[in-house]
Amino acid sequence: MSQNSSRAVGRHFLHIPGPTPLPDRILRAMDTPIIDHRGPELQKLAKRVLEGIKTIFKTSHPVIIYTATGTGAWEAALVNTLSPGDKVLMVETGQFATLWKNMAVKLGLNPEFIPTDWRIGADPAVIEEHLRKDKAHEIKAVCVLHNETATGCLSPIAAIRKAIDAAGHPALFLVDTISSLASTDYRHDEWGVDVTVGGAQKGLMLPPGMSFNALSEKALAASKSSQLTKSFWSWDDMLNMNKIGFFPYTPATQMLHGLATAIDMLHEEGLDNVFARHDRLAEATRRAVRAWGLEIMCRDAKYYSPTVTAVMLPEGHDADAFRNLALDSYNISYGASFGRYAGKYFRIGHLGDINEAMLLGGLSVTEMALALGGIPHKKGGAQAAMDYLVSAAASPSRAAAE
Amino acid sequence: MSQNSSRAVGRHFLHIPGPTPLPDRILRAMDTPIIDHRGPELQKLAKRVLEGIKTIFKTSHPVIIYTATGTGAWEAALVNTLSPGDKVLMVETGQFATLWKNMAVKLGLNPEFIPTDWRIGADPAVIEEHLRKDKAHEIKAVCVLHNETATGCLSPIAAIRKAIDAAGHPALFLVDTISSLASTDYRHDEWGVDVTVGGAQKGLMLPPGMSFNALSEKALAASKSSQLTKSFWSWDDMLNMNKIGFFPYTPATQMLHGLATAIDMLHEEGLDNVFARHDRLAEATRRAVRAWGLEIMCRDAKYYSPTVTAVMLPEGHDADAFRNLALDSYNISYGASFGRYAGKYFRIGHLGDINEAMLLGGLSVTEMALALGGIPHKKGGAQAAMDYLVSAAASPSRAAAE
Amino acid sequence: MSQNSSRAVGRHFLHIPGPTPLPDRILRAMDTPIIDHRGPELQKLAKRVLEGIKTIFKTSHPVIIYTATGTGAWEAALVNTLSPGDKVLMVETGQFATLWKNMAVKLGLNPEFIPTDWRIGADPAVIEEHLRKDKAHEIKAVCVLHNETATGCLSPIAAIRKAIDAAGHPALFLVDTISSLASTDYRHDEWGVDVTVGGAQKGLMLPPGMSFNALSEKALAASKSSQLTKSFWSWDDMLNMNKIGFFPYTPATQMLHGLATAIDMLHEEGLDNVFARHDRLAEATRRAVRAWGLEIMCRDAKYYSPTVTAVMLPEGHDADAFRNLALDSYNISYGASFGRYAGKYFRIGHLGDINEAMLLGGLSVTEMALALGGIPHKKGGAQAAMDYLVSAAASPSRAAAE
Amino acid sequence: MSQNSSRAVGRHFLHIPGPTPLPDRILRAMDTPIIDHRGPELQKLAKRVLEGIKTIFKTSHPVIIYTATGTGAWEAALVNTLSPGDKVLMVETGQFATLWKNMAVKLGLNPEFIPTDWRIGADPAVIEEHLRKDKAHEIKAVCVLHNETATGCLSPIAAIRKAIDAAGHPALFLVDTISSLASTDYRHDEWGVDVTVGGAQKGLMLPPGMSFNALSEKALAASKSSQLTKSFWSWDDMLNMNKIGFFPYTPATQMLHGLATAIDMLHEEGLDNVFARHDRLAEATRRAVRAWGLEIMCRDAKYYSPTVTAVMLPEGHDADAFRNLALDSYNISYGASFGRYAGKYFRIGHLGDINEAMLLGGLSVTEMALALGGIPHKKGGAQAAMDYLVSAAASPSRAAAE
Repeated sequence: MSQNSSRAVGRHFLHIPGPTPLPDRILRAMDTPIIDHRGPELQKLAKRVLEGIKTIFKTSHPVIIYTATGTGAWEAALVNTLSPGDKVLMVETGQFATLWKNMAVKLGLNPEFIPTDWRIGADPAVIEEHLRKDKAHEIKAVCVLHNETATGCLSPIAAIRKAIDAAGHPALFLVDTISSLASTDYRHDEWGVDVTVGGAQKGLMLPPGMSFNALSEKALAASKSSQLTKSFWSWDDMLNMNKIGFFPYTPATQMLHGLATAIDMLHEEGLDNVFARHDRLAEATRRAVRAWGLEIMCRDAKYYSPTVTAVMLPEGHDADAFRNLALDSYNISYGASFGRYAGKYFRIGHLGDINEAMLLGGLSVTEMALALGGIPHKKGGAQAAMDYLVSAAASPSRAAAE
Repeated sequence: MSQNSSRAVGRHFLHIPGPTPLPDRILRAMDTPIIDHRGPELQKLAKRVLEGIKTIFKTSHPVIIYTATGTGAWEAALVNTLSPGDKVLMVETGQFATLWKNMAVKLGLNPEFIPTDWRIGADPAVIEEHLRKDKAHEIKAVCVLHNETATGCLSPIAAIRKAIDAAGHPALFLVDTISSLASTDYRHDEWGVDVTVGGAQKGLMLPPGMSFNALSEKALAASKSSQLTKSFWSWDDMLNMNKIGFFPYTPATQMLHGLATAIDMLHEEGLDNVFARHDRLAEATRRAVRAWGLEIMCRDAKYYSPTVTAVMLPEGHDADAFRNLALDSYNISYGASFGRYAGKYFRIGHLGDINEAMLLGGLSVTEMALALGGIPHKKGGAQAAMDYLVSAAASPSRAAAE
Repeated sequence: MSQNSSRAVGRHFLHIPGPTPLPDRILRAMDTPIIDHRGPELQKLAKRVLEGIKTIFKTSHPVIIYTATGTGAWEAALVNTLSPGDKVLMVETGQFATLWKNMAVKLGLNPEFIPTDWRIGADPAVIEEHLRKDKAHEIKAVCVLHNETATGCLSPIAAIRKAIDAAGHPALFLVDTISSLASTDYRHDEWGVDVTVGGAQKGLMLPPGMSFNALSEKALAASKSSQLTKSFWSWDDMLNMNKIGFFPYTPATQMLHGLATAIDMLHEEGLDNVFARHDRLAEATRRAVRAWGLEIMCRDAKYYSPTVTAVMLPEGHDADAFRNLALDSYNISYGASFGRYAGKYFRIGHLGDINEAMLLGGLSVTEMALALGGIPHKKGGAQAAMDYLVSAAASPSRAAAE
Repeated sequence: MSQNSSRAVGRHFLHIPGPTPLPDRILRAMDTPIIDHRGPELQKLAKRVLEGIKTIFKTSHPVIIYTATGTGAWEAALVNTLSPGDKVLMVETGQFATLWKNMAVKLGLNPEFIPTDWRIGADPAVIEEHLRKDKAHEIKAVCVLHNETATGCLSPIAAIRKAIDAAGHPALFLVDTISSLASTDYRHDEWGVDVTVGGAQKGLMLPPGMSFNALSEKALAASKSSQLTKSFWSWDDMLNMNKIGFFPYTPATQMLHGLATAIDMLHEEGLDNVFARHDRLAEATRRAVRAWGLEIMCRDAKYYSPTVTAVMLPEGHDADAFRNLALDSYNISYGASFGRYAGKYFRIGHLGDINEAMLLGGLSVTEMALALGGIPHKKGGAQAAMDYLVSAAASPSRAAAE
C-alpha cells in the first residue's frame, strides 16, 4: 500500500475491460514523428492496415477505419444502412446495448428492445420469435452486442444468424464486437454479419481513438438507399479514398502506426492462440470468483464472456467503495457497474496483452482488497485460478474446457 | 540526396500546413501507459484540459472536445445548431470551404455559397451585402474559415462580425480555425463567434485525432431547437459529463495527455510570442517566394496567412512532380494543390513548433529543389528570408510589419 | 503459456535482482533529444543530480558519477585510495565478493579473504578479530558488500563500523551498495564509510550504465597518496569539473535525465516508505518460499536481504532448467546461481519499482512453474505471501517485523 | 528569437561535433523495458551487435564493447597493450590528442609528443622520421587520432601505416576514430591498425555511454605480456564472455538495442553513401565559411575533416560569447574552443544523422547570429553552401570533390 506516499508505486494493474494495457511495442510504434498524411509513406501504411484489419474481422469485404471511439462506429453502422423511422430489433443485454438503443432513438429510428435481466446474452430463440412475428418485415436490422461489456455476457452470433435465417427474415444483421474482437473467435463473412462494429482499445491493444465498420455486400447495397443524414460517417467517401490508400480527411496517423503493429502482434501469436489464452484466463478468473464465494453476474455459463467477468458483491457492500479502496491500496482499476445494478458489482477485465502473471497479480490483490474492505469472502481465489491454469498448461487440449 | 539508399537520412522537414511537427515533449507526454478513463486520474486531467483549452480559444464558455479530426467538428457545429433545409451563408475561399459546403448539402442544409477566385479571404463587405438582402432572415448561419488551408488566405473574423452586426442580421456565426488556432490571434468571445471549430494537429502541435467546438450562449440556445439528427456529436451529453470531469464515451486519453502539455507549452512561450513568431516566419517565407520570382497564391496582402503560403509555379510546370522531387531529393513535404488549381501550386506550411533554423532549412532545400527541377526562378530566396529575419530580430518592434 | 507462439505475451516479469523494471516515467525522461554536454542545460542538470544523489547516500560529501556499470565503480574505489601491494580485508559473502577480491588481485593488491559458506553476511566479530590481529596496520582497507546479490545476504554496515573502531584500526572502510542502495536504509556519513560504491540499475530504477563513489574526507586524503595507476577513474578530474557542473569527459546525458527523475520519484514516495515497502515484499517472498517447503539460501534470519531471496531447489533438481522452464512458460526471469552452488538455486529479485500485485504475479507463476517442472513443493506459497501482506497492511506498525 | 519566452521553440540544432542528433528510430529502440542481461534475448542481441560492429570497423577481429565513453576506450587501448615506462609516439594534433597524451603520462607511460600548431593533422613523414631515429625500438606504440575533434583536422591513417612500415618499426599502431567512425572511410584490418578506439555518440548516432576497442592479432599478443594494471578494461574477460554472447559485467542493455539499430541504419543507407554524404556536407560548410570571409582552422586542405569544421573569429571577437548569442537567439549549439585558441574559434559539427536541410538551417542561423553579434563577415555563406550542394546533386560523380 502506498497511502503515505505521493506516488503510486510500480505498475498499475489495469483490469478495466478496455482500454487494455498498452504493449510497449505499440507505444513505441506510435511514438514517432508525424508523417505527411497525403504522402507515399502514409499510403503504404494505409494499404497495409486496410488489408490487415480484414484478417482480424475475417472478412474479404472492406473495413472502414474511423478516427473516433466505438460510439462513432455504432452511429456509422446505423446511419449508413437505415432510414428515418426504420424499425430495428435490439436486445437489452446491459448498459452498452441500452446506449446503442438510445442512440437509435436519437437518430430517428424505432427500436424494438428485447428485455433481459442483464445477466444473460442475446437468446437466438427469442430473436427468431420476434422476427417471425414481423410478417411485414418492418424490422430493417437486428442489432446485437457480441460481448456486453457492462455485464460480461457473450452472445452467440453464429446462432443468431441461423435464427434470422430460420425466420426467413431479410433484416440486416449489425453486430458490435468492441469488447470481443481479437479476443475471441469472430467471423464476419462466415457468420453472415452485415456490419460489424469494432474498436481499437480492447483486443487490438491500442489507445482509444479508432473504430471500425466491417461491411457486407448487403450492407453496401443498403447504404445506397439509406436516408439517414450523414457526412463524416459516410462509407462512400471512405471507400473511394481508401481504394488509393488515402482517407477523405486527415486520419489519426499515430493510431495507424499502432494498428499495423497490433495486427502483426496478433498474427505472431496466432489468432487461435490469442483466443485460447483469453478463454483460459477467463476461466481462471471465474474459478477465483467462485472460490471467494462471490456471484458471477452472468448467470448462465453458456454466455460467459472471455474478456470480462462481472462480480457481484454481497448485499450491503458498495462496489464503488471497494474499487476505490483497491485503487488506493493496490494500484488496480476495475470496471464500474451500471443502471439498476449500480454499486452492486465490479468488473474484472482480462483481455488484451495480458498473461498469467499479470492476471494472478490482479486476482491476488483483489483478494487482498476484499479482506481489507471487509467484504465477506473465502480465501483461496487466486489459488484456485493458479490450480486451474497449471492443469490447463499440463493438458493443453482441455485448456478452455470448464 | 539519398537516392541510392534505402533510408531517408536525417530529420524529415514536414512543411505541410498541418499536421505539424510533433514536439518531443508532446510525444513523450503521450507515450504513457493507458489510464482508467473513469478513474480519478482521468478526471483530474479532463478538468485541466477543459479549463485550459478555453484560454486558447479565449472564451469563458464551454469547449467540446471530440475524438475525431476537424471534419467531425465541422459536422458537430452544423448538426447541433441547425435544422433540415436551413439556409447557411458560406464563402468559397478554397477547397476546405468547398468541402464544408458539400457537407452542409449532405446534411440537408441549403448553403448559399459566395464565390471567389480562391486567391483572397472572405470579404466582410460581400457578406454584409448578402445578409442585407436576406430580409426574411432565412439565413440561419454564416460559416467562414478563419484560415483557408488550401490557399493561404486569412479572413478577418472581427470585421465579419461587425458586418453581420451592421446588417442587423440574427444569423449564427460559425468559424473554422483549424489551421489558425494557436498560431494567430483569435478571440471567440470578444469577436462574438457562436461556434468555433478547431483541430489538434496544427497550432496545438498534436497528432490528428482530436477536434473542438467552442460555444456561445446563443449557440447553446440554438442547440435546444436544432432538428438535425445527431448522437455522437451531441453537445448535451458532452456538457453533462464534462461537468464532472468525464466524457460520455471513452475519450482518446493519450491525446488528452498531449493536449495538457500543448497548452502548457503555448503559455510558457506566451500566446503573443507565438503569434509574433508565426507572423515573422510567414513574412520571411513570402520574401523568399518573391525573391524566387514566383507568385504567391494569395493575391491581396491583407489576406496573407500567418500559417501557410501557397506558391504558384510558372505555367507548364507540374507542382506535384516538384513536390515528389523535393521529397525524394531533400526529405521535405509540402501541401498539395486542389480543384481548379490542381498541379499548379504547392503550399509551404510554417506553423506549429517551428523556429528560424527549421524554416530556413526548409526554404533552402526548396530553393535547391527548384534548381534541380528546372523550375524557372531566381536564387536568393532563402537569403531574402534570412535578411528579413535578421532585421526583424534587430528591431523587434517592427518584426511583424511588412 | 505461449509455447506455440512466436511472441512472448504480456509484460515480462523481471525478477532478477537488478537491473530492475524500468518505470515508464524514467524511460520517458531518457527518451529525449541529446543536449550539448557543455551547454547550460547540461550544467543545470548536472548540478541537480550531483546534489540529489547525496540525499540517497545520506552524505554531505561529494559523490562521483561514472559512466560505467558497478564493476567500474569497484575499481574506482580501490585505485583512488590504495597503492600496489596494499593489504585489504575482504569477506567472501558470495560470488560478487569473490569478483571484487579477484579484481583487487588483478590491480596488484593483496587481499585477505575471510571465508564463509556463502549463506550468511559479513560478521562484524570476525572482522574485528582480523583487525585486532593486524598490529602493524598492514590492512589498508576493509571491503564489504552491503548486500551480496548472489546469495541474498545483507551485512550489518553500522555494526562493522563499530567493529573497526573497537579494534582501533585505521583502515579505510569501502562498502558496495549496488543491490541495496535506495532499497534499504544506508547512511554513508553516519556509518563512517569512506567509499560507498553504488549502481544505477537496482534501487535507482535506471538502466545499467552508471555507477557511483560516495567519498569521505579520509578517502579524499588517501587519494592524495594512492599509488595505483588511474586516469579514467581518477576522482580529482571529476571533482574539479563537477564543481562547475560539468564532467571531464562526455557524460551519459540520457542517464543523467533518468537519474534526476529517479531521485524525484524516491523522495515523492519517501525513502522510509521505500525501505518499508522492500522489507514487506521481502518478508512476503520468504513466507512463500517457506510455504513451498523450499530452503532459503540465507541461513540466518539476521542477514536476510530486503532485495533478493535465493531459493534452493531439492537435491537432484536443476535450477537453470527450472529458470528456463519458467521463462518459456510464464515470461518470468530470475537470477542465476554461482560458484559451488551453480545449478542449485535461483534468485527472486524483489527490488526497485515493484508493488504487491507485481510480486504476487511473480510468486504465483513461480509456484506454477514449480508444479510444471515437477519440483517437489507444497502449494500455498503465494497464498502465504498474500496473507502476510494483508496482515501487514492491516497493522502497518509491524509490517516489517517477521 | 525566443528571448521573451520561457521555452526554447522548435527543434534544437545540435551542431556540436558529437554527441550527434539522435534519430527517433534509435531513441525508440532504446525506449524499451529492461531485459535479463543473462537471458537468451540478451544473448541473441549481443551476438548480433558483436558481429555487426565488425562491419563498421571493417575488421574480422573481435571488437570489445565498453560501457563507458571514449575516454575509457582510450585507457583500455593503452593498458591492455603496454607496460609501465613504455615509450609511445603521439602527435599533438589538438586538445583531444593532448588529453590522450596526459592520460598516457598518468598511466605511467612515456609519451614522445610530436608538436603541431593545432591546424593540421598528423604528418606521416614526420612520424616516419621519428621512428627511423628510434633504432632501439623503444617506441612501443604510435598513437594517432584519425580525426582531431578539437580542430577539424583528419589524419591519413593508411599513409601513417605505410610510414611505420617504411621505417621498419615494430611499434603497435593505436588509432582513435571517435569522431570519424561511421562518418568517413576507415579500414581497421586493411590499414593494419592494432587497436582502434571508437565511440557511440558520433557517427554511430547513439547517446554517449559506450565505446569500443577493435583489435588485431598483434594487439592480442601484446596484451599477453602487457604489465599495466587493469581489471575493468581487461580484454581477456570480455573476449571469453563475448564468445558465448554475454559480458563479464552487466552491459548497458538499452545501448545495445540502440547499437543494433544504428548498425542496421548505416547499412540501409550504405556505408559509401554515408561517407559521401559527410564529404558533401563538410565541403558545403567550408564554402559557407569562406564566403563569410572567415578562416577555417584547418590550414591545409589535405587534412580537412569530413565531420567538423572549426571556424576562427576575427581578432577581438569572443567565440564563446558568439556561441551563447546563437544559442539564445536561434536554439543552436556549436563546439567550444580549447587551449591556446580558447575563445578564438567555434566548431560546426556536421556528422551523424544529418541531411541538407538540417545543415542549411544551421548554417543560415549561424550567418544570422554573425550579423546579430556584430562579427565582421560577408553575407552569402548559406547561399554558397546551397550552390555547392545543388551542383553536387546535379553531378553526383564529383559530389565529394572540392
